[in-house]
Amino acid sequence: MAQRLIIALDAMGGDNAPQSVVRGADIARERFPQAEFLLFGDERKVKPLLDKRRKLISQATLCHTEQIVRMDDKPAIALRAGRQSSMRLAIDAVRNGEAHACVSAGNTGALMAMSKVVLRTLKGVGRPAMASIVPTKCGETVMLDLGANVDCEGCNLVEFAIMGEVFARTVLGLEEPMVGLLNVGVEEMKGHGAVRDAHGELSVTQLPLQYAGFIEGDDIADGTVDVVVTDGFTGNVALKTAEGTAKLTALFLRRAFESSWLARMAYVIARPALRKFKARVDPRRYNGAVFLGLNGVVVKGHGGSDSLAFANAVGVAADLCQYGFIDAIRDQIDRLAAERAGAPAEQLTAG
Amino acid sequence: MAQRLIIALDAMGGDNAPQSVVRGADIARERFPQAEFLLFGDERKVKPLLDKRRKLISQATLCHTEQIVRMDDKPAIALRAGRQSSMRLAIDAVRNGEAHACVSAGNTGALMAMSKVVLRTLKGVGRPAMASIVPTKCGETVMLDLGANVDCEGCNLVEFAIMGEVFARTVLGLEEPMVGLLNVGVEEMKGHGAVRDAHGELSVTQLPLQYAGFIEGDDIADGTVDVVVTDGFTGNVALKTAEGTAKLTALFLRRAFESSWLARMAYVIARPALRKFKARVDPRRYNGAVFLGLNGVVVKGHGGSDSLAFANAVGVAADLCQYGFIDAIRDQIDRLAAERAGAPAEQLTAG
Repeated sequence: MAQRLIIALDAMGGDNAPQSVVRGADIARERFPQAEFLLFGDERKVKPLLDKRRKLISQATLCHTEQIVRMDDKPAIALRAGRQSSMRLAIDAVRNGEAHACVSAGNTGALMAMSKVVLRTLKGVGRPAMASIVPTKCGETVMLDLGANVDCEGCNLVEFAIMGEVFARTVLGLEEPMVGLLNVGVEEMKGHGAVRDAHGELSVTQLPLQYAGFIEGDDIADGTVDVVVTDGFTGNVALKTAEGTAKLTALFLRRAFESSWLARMAYVIARPALRKFKARVDPRRYNGAVFLGLNGVVVKGHGGSDSLAFANAVGVAADLCQYGFIDAIRDQIDRLAAERAGAPAEQLTAG
Repeated sequence: MAQRLIIALDAMGGDNAPQSVVRGADIARERFPQAEFLLFGDERKVKPLLDKRRKLISQATLCHTEQIVRMDDKPAIALRAGRQSSMRLAIDAVRNGEAHACVSAGNTGALMAMSKVVLRTLKGVGRPAMASIVPTKCGETVMLDLGANVDCEGCNLVEFAIMGEVFARTVLGLEEPMVGLLNVGVEEMKGHGAVRDAHGELSVTQLPLQYAGFIEGDDIADGTVDVVVTDGFTGNVALKTAEGTAKLTALFLRRAFESSWLARMAYVIARPALRKFKARVDPRRYNGAVFLGLNGVVVKGHGGSDSLAFANAVGVAADLCQYGFIDAIRDQIDRLAAERAGAPAEQLTAG
């Protein structure tokens, strides 16, 4: 598995599919020359695009299917009626051992529902979560859950913390990532039952996890911790609020530069620097939400992914495979289960 | 009440008190020449500051007290031990009819706890909420709750919607503000029980309220609605996340302008335009969270308020008094109570 790297792609998922998927795979191929791609989708649409990319063809296999999951299909419908869909077949490939990971920019709810049914949740994990990487003052931070679970109990948040920590070690390459629990204040008595329960368990756990305690919303961008843990409702709202605020700030800035001829001139002079600024906050750099807690790697690209964004999502999937992500999570979750069952601490830290 | 406008100020509340409070009152005085101020605080500290401001003196009364609520006091302790504190006396002044509103930049939890005990919650309101104004693409939007209630049920969110709508009419001067419920998606089946319950009630209410349905995190900055309704946990995290993101964007921008001599030159040329940009996102403009659902107007300035920020918080309090805010809320909440008790629709819309 360390040698070969086979990634199943839902060629029909996302607003710009299949173009963005084929082009994205071609970009990802340059970073991961050993990668092989299984593309699931409509031959009539995908093949003409593939034929134009000689180098990619030698690393890609096209698996024809006409069925697709639409962006507005309900997860339950997609599950029932989409067994031959490009999305489902890509996930099936992971389960059957034909691929090491699966990437789709399609319908999030359907992808999560299908992944849960096909790959199943890891033993010891109550609920899978969705994680992503967000930019901060100091670099990058992992944040989860981003919407898979709108209701969470303390035990779920603890599992998110553990999975997020492994994710940060794997994808960000951090040795001892700091983990924080998102709350409305940093004092012990703050917050609702779920965050206080999780705080209690994380404060006493013997697992090798650097727990920083409670953090607040502004700590996300400040990069106070490397892993931000929260429930799917709060996480989804926080992530989208941050995206909205970043766009708004850019808009105000644009207006400022259009407000006078002097400002317009300054804009022309500053353009190279501003381009760097734009690249720094480019949401495409942070594309690729990962489903954590499943028996397999599933990466979700943003529905509006272009080829560059899709390539980044493929890159995340490749990183996770290469660094033995699933095994590392399984290992930590087993330790947690042992701790919860009352095993002695030495046993937990020895592994 | 429309003629006189008396505002009680906690002169000792906030990191920069009492300087910021005295200077802030002096700034607010220019916008509200009819205002009179009751300043509660330590005479030895406040009087020397007041003495330097001749115009303010004629409109201000200093009420001496040595007791203060510290920023890190627990609300329960402040309630019990702070009966003679500058914060408490300012709230008492509202209850006793000596002032029309109270403003403090002190300890938020203590201010909310004291306000609830002293002023009591309005009949028909389950829980008071904290609201504030946030900048958007199209102007400004009211958002609540911002942290007063970490656990909310659907009925609480409905009351927040109604109070927030009155707030938007009063402070933003909108005739028919649109109200949206913050969720993780716009489809009916999205979200947890509380938002779905609130959605159900708001969708059928006969109250004169423009309900836009579910909105998502990025809709806040987009200004999709005029009033964003959410629970105190999500609202607090979203607001602080937005603040953090705005600061981060400004930091990236500053770095971009420092990245080359050409960029530094452009910065000098663009400075006036960038100053306008900075003013547009200046958090001091949006200072002043309002406690809604109490028998009295209480405005909380940011703990780090400088004089300009404090003056804006005073301005919010003055606006609320002048436009009969409490009476308008009482009126709408009475209608809601009648509707919940099953009164016919005609009676509800006639009022």
